[in-house]
Amino acid sequence: MSSPHLAVIGGGQLARMMQQAAIGLGIRIRLLAEGDDASAAQVIADKIVGDYTDLDILREVVADCPVVTFDHEHVPPAHLQTLEAEGHACRPGPAALVYAQDKGLMRTKLATLGVPQPDFSLFDPVVDPNGVQNFADRVGGYPFVLKTTRGGYDGKGVWFIYKESDAAAALASGRILLAEAKVPFVRELSALVARSASGEVAAYPIAESVQKDGMCHEVVSPAPDLDPALAKEAQQLAINIAEQLGVTGILAVELFETPDRRIVVNELAMRPHNTGHWSIDGAVTSQFENHLRAVLGMPLGSTSPHRSWAVMVNILGGVVDDLESRRALVMAQDCEVKIHLYGKNVKPGRKVGHVTVCGDDFDDVVARARRAARLFVEGDTHE
Amino acid sequence: MSSPHLAVIGGGQLARMMQQAAIGLGIRIRLLAEGDDASAAQVIADKIVGDYTDLDILREVVADCPVVTFDHEHVPPAHLQTLEAEGHACRPGPAALVYAQDKGLMRTKLATLGVPQPDFSLFDPVVDPNGVQNFADRVGGYPFVLKTTRGGYDGKGVWFIYKESDAAAALASGRILLAEAKVPFVRELSALVARSASGEVAAYPIAESVQKDGMCHEVVSPAPDLDPALAKEAQQLAINIAEQLGVTGILAVELFETPDRRIVVNELAMRPHNTGHWSIDGAVTSQFENHLRAVLGMPLGSTSPHRSWAVMVNILGGVVDDLESRRALVMAQDCEVKIHLYGKNVKPGRKVGHVTVCGDDFDDVVARARRAARLFVEGDTHE
Repeated sequence: MSSPHLAVIGGGQLARMMQQAAIGLGIRIRLLAEGDDASAAQVIADKIVGDYTDLDILREVVADCPVVTFDHEHVPPAHLQTLEAEGHACRPGPAALVYAQDKGLMRTKLATLGVPQPDFSLFDPVVDPNGVQNFADRVGGYPFVLKTTRGGYDGKGVWFIYKESDAAAALASGRILLAEAKVPFVRELSALVARSASGEVAAYPIAESVQKDGMCHEVVSPAPDLDPALAKEAQQLAINIAEQLGVTGILAVELFETPDRRIVVNELAMRPHNTGHWSIDGAVTSQFENHLRAVLGMPLGSTSPHRSWAVMVNILGGVVDDLESRRALVMAQDCEVKIHLYGKNVKPGRKVGHVTVCGDDFDDVVARARRAARLFVEGDTHE
Repeated sequence: MSSPHLAVIGGGQLARMMQQAAIGLGIRIRLLAEGDDASAAQVIADKIVGDYTDLDILREVVADCPVVTFDHEHVPPAHLQTLEAEGHACRPGPAALVYAQDKGLMRTKLATLGVPQPDFSLFDPVVDPNGVQNFADRVGGYPFVLKTTRGGYDGKGVWFIYKESDAAAALASGRILLAEAKVPFVRELSALVARSASGEVAAYPIAESVQKDGMCHEVVSPAPDLDPALAKEAQQLAINIAEQLGVTGILAVELFETPDRRIVVNELAMRPHNTGHWSIDGAVTSQFENHLRAVLGMPLGSTSPHRSWAVMVNILGGVVDDLESRRALVMAQDCEVKIHLYGKNVKPGRKVGHVTVCGDDFDDVVARARRAARLFVEGDTHE
């Protein structure tokens, strides 16, 4: 086989969907996957199975790859610094990625940039046992949110604190904790931008994201009835953050929209993001193609949508564990539904795929996307 | 690895583009490729390298695959019959595929179906040395066309006969020959349909195809200024042929449009076809996804286009042999161009990729698609 152009660390569905874009562009990916049957390992020929925390494995994977990118944010920063020192361009690089890896560093950095975000406090419960009470006093009581600064995702490592005793599990985690004031919000938005190694930036339309049990569940692009000035402000905010943090690739900025129509930063992700999956079927250039273009220093593609609305709904593991038996039913129900299955075993609540419907009638598009996902998840053929 | 759902015989760009669609649908492909670095072998993990004329290799590839499909039409029909007898569903099956493999059988069969096609004659020059003269007498002289009945493609195995002596090379081929009257035509059209194993059919818009040196070069979908009644007739003709020949998968019917606005069948192909590549970026469901759905007996997807026009131009091997060095230039020139590189070494005249532009302004879309392809082929950055 010829040398790869790009190493991708992590064999999840994001790497799998990068491969669809890579095939078109003629980009050869070498994958580091956690198992031979991982989602992306099923569809990438040039792969190594191993542990991304093992520096020797990482070195083997990137050996003849000039550029390295990621399916997830969990590679130890010290390893990335070593790979960079050894001549491999990590994109995003460790200096940027740390702000997606550590929520405490992210909050502290965004504060210096003057980015709108919740009031917060960082403390180590071992040396600061009154951290919870002190934060409650400062923000005027409960409720608020405690998060571990590292390693949490999809609702894991997050605790909602309605009274002091709710903090017990968080304190028992033995981890540095981030306390965040609970932001009253009317909905969640996502600002997705690509930033190329050349510095070029491209912003996708601002999407609305509906969470369920702490996980992204449904995304509507563009966010309905969003004030155009606020949409512009959110895009510019994401571009500024990408530039200030030196992000290369896709940056997703998860936002709260407050009742008084302001935006507040919730989370950052430096990789293709669930809130951008609609772009595979709904935009001229998907977030996966633009991520590849960005990390390889290529010019970015148009983020224009094909139709007025794109609605994506996740397929979570549910009652039905045989997705393939449902696939034909979903196809038969609606010939315009775009189906994405990740090749993963079904477990309750696990993201195993998504569906997207694009069109010009909002109510119709939303109803059809939900109906298709419901058929996958619940196996329910009734309306 | 889990068992594959589908075996694909042949590692060319059609199998490569099938894989993009298969990733989305969660369909696992096992590939038989002619080399480990063949176009599709680069992007399919589960693959065997071997010779598709070797029955034992075919048996190894399809062993745990219920369904078999094809990147090309060259697998010996007897082998396909054996695989079918051994319980593997070949789609399209040998009884249909023979009409794409043998132009003589195709003409004879279409004649029995009353399909409009050129006057023709089949003869073996060894036993019928006057075959050329007899055909010339019958159709009123020259010019006409001689073709080998098997093995020709992209202009190979085709001779234009302007006088009797032009037939020498064809006669010397030692092959059964098909003589076809030359059809006066104003342009070439393509009618592309998918037919599922269930019998369901779906037709794409009729496209116009511009040939260059006997190869498809540029495709515009839909064909500009085509009489809607003739478009409907062409779609219905392709559906009828698919049904009458028992085709499963994509059927491409290449047509001549005559000066008096009739359609005449030129060639058939029973696989995704160059004239349908525009559908990857320009339609709700690409021809590759519908081919997979069809051969696996799934309901078909919508063939609706995203925009008013889609224009595809092939990238043929030319002056520039480093496509990757051109890729970023093409991207920089036009952020809406969709690039498809096949991972093949550049040889003069070889199809190594294609570009597609979609939009609503016909002249603009045509000009931009041509400009992008020219930059790839000629390395010319000037207008």
